[in-house]
Amino acid sequence: MLKDGRETGKWIRVMTAHRMNLHLVSDATGETLNSIARATVSQFEHAQIIYHRWSLIRTRFQLHRVLEGIEAEPGPVLSTLIEPGLRSELENFCSRIGIAVVHVLDPVLSLLQHHIGEQAIARPGRQYVLDADYFRRIDAMHFVLAHDDGQAQVGINEADLCLVGVSRSSKTPTSFYLANRGVKAANIPLVPGLPEPPGLEAPIVPVIGLTIDPEALIEIRRHRLKLIGGQPNVQQNTAYVDLESVKAELIWARRLCARKGWPVIDVTRRSIEETAATVLQLVEAWHERRRSLPPGG
Amino acid sequence: MLKDGRETGKWIRVMTAHRMNLHLVSDATGETLNSIARATVSQFEHAQIIYHRWSLIRTRFQLHRVLEGIEAEPGPVLSTLIEPGLRSELENFCSRIGIAVVHVLDPVLSLLQHHIGEQAIARPGRQYVLDADYFRRIDAMHFVLAHDDGQAQVGINEADLCLVGVSRSSKTPTSFYLANRGVKAANIPLVPGLPEPPGLEAPIVPVIGLTIDPEALIEIRRHRLKLIGGQPNVQQNTAYVDLESVKAELIWARRLCARKGWPVIDVTRRSIEETAATVLQLVEAWHERRRSLPPGG
Repeated sequence: MLKDGRETGKWIRVMTAHRMNLHLVSDATGETLNSIARATVSQFEHAQIIYHRWSLIRTRFQLHRVLEGIEAEPGPVLSTLIEPGLRSELENFCSRIGIAVVHVLDPVLSLLQHHIGEQAIARPGRQYVLDADYFRRIDAMHFVLAHDDGQAQVGINEADLCLVGVSRSSKTPTSFYLANRGVKAANIPLVPGLPEPPGLEAPIVPVIGLTIDPEALIEIRRHRLKLIGGQPNVQQNTAYVDLESVKAELIWARRLCARKGWPVIDVTRRSIEETAATVLQLVEAWHERRRSLPPGG
Repeated sequence: MLKDGRETGKWIRVMTAHRMNLHLVSDATGETLNSIARATVSQFEHAQIIYHRWSLIRTRFQLHRVLEGIEAEPGPVLSTLIEPGLRSELENFCSRIGIAVVHVLDPVLSLLQHHIGEQAIARPGRQYVLDADYFRRIDAMHFVLAHDDGQAQVGINEADLCLVGVSRSSKTPTSFYLANRGVKAANIPLVPGLPEPPGLEAPIVPVIGLTIDPEALIEIRRHRLKLIGGQPNVQQNTAYVDLESVKAELIWARRLCARKGWPVIDVTRRSIEETAATVLQLVEAWHERRRSLPPGG
């Protein structure tokens, strides 16, 4: 096979059939394009995408570096550029070298333009650092720093919600992600042997349990132990990553949540973003239930 | 005016001309739609959008609640639904009641389909919790928790980069955001009076300074003091939020960065995302410079 040029060529073609460059060109942070690329590429099982991320592209000079990059490693372009001059330069260049460009925001901009009855301003959007959203986010981040893993429990009632779960059940990553969205999540470990987590006797915020498959939990704990390095208490670490002990620990935690009436999310097959979205739905449901309670009841 | 029905009607029309419902319907977390909505709505100066976010919509039953919501508060729909049955039910319903639907991922899906030569699988995408990306993110989050504000400085060289700046210059929000992206940022305060931050004598990672307009910094510090409540040291707090002192502090910090050759980002008019994107560009430039150094030189 390898001696036959045609066959070899074919073999190479098959091996590389789904490999492609994808250029993401943004005048802002590139978050929108990252998100769109993740959502769409995951729909193709055999795609091997080499991402080229070009963010904060706001001048012709910056754009020229991008065009050089596209020419050097050709592949389709997703763009959120909004400034007409930059857009047309990108389009002209790409059409000259036979590269497809999709302006991902265009259908939505047309829709909004039609409904709002106003032209888009066609300037790269900027958020400002000191809006209410910014303060909400930094407050939530400082809250996580102060309250991670049950520290300073007095603050629970200042939180928007409280996450509970055994060690390494994703409480910290979930609260981090929520903080970035401006939501304050307190974070309290469920420790086997303690019948009830201190600080949660009469919570006035929604409490949500996180659980996970024992095998997955052990993998995360092993990773964590390796990272921390030292194993100060071998006996404890053994139970910490022993399948039977971990199973018992998880069952105990689920029962505790059931008894307290706290809903539980299984994070095993969820990304951090999905867990956070589910948390927010449960918080919303909690508030709806509260609103529908008879007054004083 | 108020007595004239026609005039009143007109007045109301003008007041509410740009107010509209916008429904964001997603089978996943809704991040992509949030991001697209933010990027596009910011292009309209007078739009007042009432967002209706419907995330994790994966069954007909869930979709029916969405359709009820759209009917109750009509407005255009942005969708990332990928499952053909749900999509067509949404489309049919909306076309019946005269509502526009934009499937925001479609142009990109077509582009990828064309280039990859493979059909999209048309199943809501799922990420799995235990991929390398997940571990990178949780490691980065634990790193931020352990190293925020100069704690445990011995770890700086395990970071991907180090942020320096005076108190409240956005080091923490930036490192939080970067951690969510799987990037470990150490975070060291520049404290006036100390000539050189300890731990930064010979850093082997890129060091990046953050600065901000004095007025904006004072606003952030005031907010923080209010939140913390107690003012244990009034004298210090005065300098902390006094315009002349803050100006001097910022000039001192900029000079220190200049002397050490650390690039500085002014975060005043940048969102957290923009600052983080600029940080990543500077880190990339630092590595490029390193690669281009003569060996041993």
